[in-house]
Amino acid sequence: MEDIYNRVLDGDRRAVARLITMVENGDPAAAEPIRHLHEHTGRAHIVGVTGATGSGKSTLVSSLTKVLRGWEMSVGIIAVDPTSPFSGGAILGDRIRMQDLTTDPGVFIRSMGTRGALGGISVATNDAVNILDAFGEDIVIVETVGAGQVEVDIVKLAHTSVVVTMPGGGDEIQAIKSGIMEIGDIFVVNKADRADAGRTYAEITMMLELSDRKDGHLPPVIRTVATTGEGVEDLALAILDHRRFLEAEGLLEQKARERIIAEMLEIINRRVGDTVVKALREDPEMIDLMRRLVDTREIDPHSGARMVIRHLLKKG
Amino acid sequence: MEDIYNRVLDGDRRAVARLITMVENGDPAAAEPIRHLHEHTGRAHIVGVTGATGSGKSTLVSSLTKVLRGWEMSVGIIAVDPTSPFSGGAILGDRIRMQDLTTDPGVFIRSMGTRGALGGISVATNDAVNILDAFGEDIVIVETVGAGQVEVDIVKLAHTSVVVTMPGGGDEIQAIKSGIMEIGDIFVVNKADRADAGRTYAEITMMLELSDRKDGHLPPVIRTVATTGEGVEDLALAILDHRRFLEAEGLLEQKARERIIAEMLEIINRRVGDTVVKALREDPEMIDLMRRLVDTREIDPHSGARMVIRHLLKKG
Repeated sequence: MEDIYNRVLDGDRRAVARLITMVENGDPAAAEPIRHLHEHTGRAHIVGVTGATGSGKSTLVSSLTKVLRGWEMSVGIIAVDPTSPFSGGAILGDRIRMQDLTTDPGVFIRSMGTRGALGGISVATNDAVNILDAFGEDIVIVETVGAGQVEVDIVKLAHTSVVVTMPGGGDEIQAIKSGIMEIGDIFVVNKADRADAGRTYAEITMMLELSDRKDGHLPPVIRTVATTGEGVEDLALAILDHRRFLEAEGLLEQKARERIIAEMLEIINRRVGDTVVKALREDPEMIDLMRRLVDTREIDPHSGARMVIRHLLKKG
Repeated sequence: MEDIYNRVLDGDRRAVARLITMVENGDPAAAEPIRHLHEHTGRAHIVGVTGATGSGKSTLVSSLTKVLRGWEMSVGIIAVDPTSPFSGGAILGDRIRMQDLTTDPGVFIRSMGTRGALGGISVATNDAVNILDAFGEDIVIVETVGAGQVEVDIVKLAHTSVVVTMPGGGDEIQAIKSGIMEIGDIFVVNKADRADAGRTYAEITMMLELSDRKDGHLPPVIRTVATTGEGVEDLALAILDHRRFLEAEGLLEQKARERIIAEMLEIINRRVGDTVVKALREDPEMIDLMRRLVDTREIDPHSGARMVIRHLLKKG
């Protein structure tokens, strides 16, 4: 085990894959290597890519990776699918990309499912990002399957968040309105060769101009056709521009700080909750309360939860 | 507000829709009506439907609903999509079904996205199930978009869990092996008119015969073609059979108990975690630790989390 982090630092891809599997499975033996790798993190630029299903995110990430590779940057890709129990490259999109990209030693692709505990996917994803960062990737891309809360929470921890939309999606615009707006540093209208791409572009641009960003950054809207590569170089440039903007404004460090804090608080949230629940399952008073909950339907679960928490606070 | 639960009990569909929106948004005003409705729950049979994307779950649920309606049972459907920020019927599949089913006053369809807090979707879904139960639905179907951990956690709280597969999915079989197996009370091979359906059927049957179920129930494997309705009556019958099995073995009550306890523990887990995290954000010692975490990269987030928890325990 002591050896695995040395192997990650030495550029051993198999050690990277193995360590990611360990964090995904919640293997306690991962703690030690993760601890040692931490001081080697903080160099990679982390790019989050989110957007509704069908917007062509996977193809875009693939195309973007080729551009970045052309500029001699190494790229790590983590494809997160909270709806799948699979991991380790089982997502179909990954398999296709694999054929294209995995012969390139400058690209590391990994998919993450939810094999482990509920919600633990965001902790596991962060660990995987850190492993690829320590491994030495210049860019780490975190791509999610949809645009739900889990995905948004994962992607907003990136240095640069890319929101992918496509023409004709009234739903897309609604998605942007309903919370994705605030997390996007760059907006993409993919499938921009479609007739109604202009309208979607105009709608997003207008919405961004009306919005009031705290950081003073006006997100660019980029038209791409991921399948042909059209506009993808512009996207790559926009990502690097955004990094320069963050550096110039002193925001890169702030984002890095927020990321680590959010990561730690998520771990604490999970641990504390799990510990309390485990303890409750063995508490006779609790068992009695649960019996009343069920047998009489006298107390609803929310009120029951409040009573238990009050009881816990009294006990200290 | 006092009025809304009376209206739900009186069969007012708009009140049902409004109360579900309230629980979804985490509106504290929902607590009172939910509390009052609790004693009216426990009558509906709750059916969970899960399976990989593309297996035709939505069409199958639609088809199943028509069969149940033919038998004069009222049906509530909750379609859960953790990858979407949308809710309230915005899922495309729902819109299509809407046209088919929503003119029927004996059917209530609702989709749930993750508009609210992370992970809160399982609490909100349970509340929605309880509302439809109190409203008087005979059957409440909870359908999920995928087969990830969140979905499995939601579906396993049903009285009867249906796992939908389709032919030719090596992935399907892998999914069944990787944890869905244990939660399935009924297995469906949908798209059974495809050439390789027989093989998938045989594989699942064999796997089930080899498995060792605690409750003594051997899950049936049912072949359906959701688009034509073929085999869907068999599925409906299998669901009612399973309910009778649970009743006969005294397991129905046990499942109901487990469901309420799981619900309460989930609420406690979330509340305790959130409360601790909120308190930590205002603790000077914590702020100091966070600074060290970020500025020196001396401590990794996992070790930091452990230190904070130890510190909390000392403080009491």
